[in-house]
Amino acid sequence: MAGLKLYGMPMSSCTARVLTCLHEKEVEFELVSVDLFTDQHKQPSFLCKNPFGQIPALEDGDLTIFESRAITEYISKKYKDQGTDLIRHESLEESTMVKVWSEVEAHQLNPVLKPIIYQFFVSPMQGKTTDQAVINENLEKLGKLLDVYEDRLGKTTYLAGDFYSLADLHHLPYLFYFMKTPWSSLVNERVKVKAWWEDISNRVTFKKVSEAMKIWN
Amino acid sequence: MAGLKLYGMPMSSCTARVLTCLHEKEVEFELVSVDLFTDQHKQPSFLCKNPFGQIPALEDGDLTIFESRAITEYISKKYKDQGTDLIRHESLEESTMVKVWSEVEAHQLNPVLKPIIYQFFVSPMQGKTTDQAVINENLEKLGKLLDVYEDRLGKTTYLAGDFYSLADLHHLPYLFYFMKTPWSSLVNERVKVKAWWEDISNRVTFKKVSEAMKIWN
Repeated sequence: MAGLKLYGMPMSSCTARVLTCLHEKEVEFELVSVDLFTDQHKQPSFLCKNPFGQIPALEDGDLTIFESRAITEYISKKYKDQGTDLIRHESLEESTMVKVWSEVEAHQLNPVLKPIIYQFFVSPMQGKTTDQAVINENLEKLGKLLDVYEDRLGKTTYLAGDFYSLADLHHLPYLFYFMKTPWSSLVNERVKVKAWWEDISNRVTFKKVSEAMKIWN
Repeated sequence: MAGLKLYGMPMSSCTARVLTCLHEKEVEFELVSVDLFTDQHKQPSFLCKNPFGQIPALEDGDLTIFESRAITEYISKKYKDQGTDLIRHESLEESTMVKVWSEVEAHQLNPVLKPIIYQFFVSPMQGKTTDQAVINENLEKLGKLLDVYEDRLGKTTYLAGDFYSLADLHHLPYLFYFMKTPWSSLVNERVKVKAWWEDISNRVTFKKVSEAMKIWN
């Protein structure tokens, strides 16, 4: 019986999200490289795993799963009794708060962080001009969102409650790249958000993953 | 003991998503109106329910939940033994496919449909000019996404498998508004997507909800 195979690239935010989850759950896996720079994710050999042509994808026997946040939930459910309990499966109330703040990452923070990171890191790599207006517009939105986080993290140690969960973990890759931009003060000037970021980004599991996260040269 | 209270507005896509779920699960609830046109969602009385100031929010006793896709999952889990089984809770494989295609709605289709609907319906209501270039760019992306849907729906009756689930339900509100634009042929010219759309949009639960979905005058 073959074990888990993760198709992706360690520097990709969505691959890093799944890698961090695999380490938290203490699950053995094989990482199969899919090179974005040579368009391997647009080849038939990968499109049969994810027809939308995006990494990562996970194979577990006959089951193929794509979309990083679906993969982390699968791993967290399948291996619920080992490693960190990332979904608080024993309490509907706690697992719902994990879901709420996972959705906040997906629908509030991600849409704002993504264009900043794209404009700052990716555009120059592709020989395009960085659009500072796009960055500024999103920095303003980010400040307002982080005010809500500051308030929330004044009430609970982590986003979903007084426990580390998928809700925090899902934030790691994009915030990691954001903290390498000149605007990291947006996090650091908010006491609770800063403490939370230092806590979650210093977990051994993410430190291992982030060593390979370099989208700059 | 108070029952469920849903704070929202029936014409809002995200409120409609939750309303459809409540009907599928045959759950009693009270709809409390939050009027976007008078900025009720930005007032303290609503911000204490969702600090991000977006509808809908659900109150169930002491528990307050926001983000529509977190609310639908909560309802589907809490009332798993009544109404339609929307999350396939008895099978990890099936529930994972529900999650995968729910994520596809959230991260693939939604980001493309939202600007089309915003430009076509909302901009004119706000006295702004419709940006046809934004619409065209997203229509092109939508066509490519729907090609993947056509292929998927050639293999299974519904998105996650041969069963109706949250993955299909989550698509209803935005696609409903999209089908009122001049570009509905993008759905109708794809045989499998058209059949799927006609199936899910004609369910009694959604027909009831969509009667109140009017963002035009």
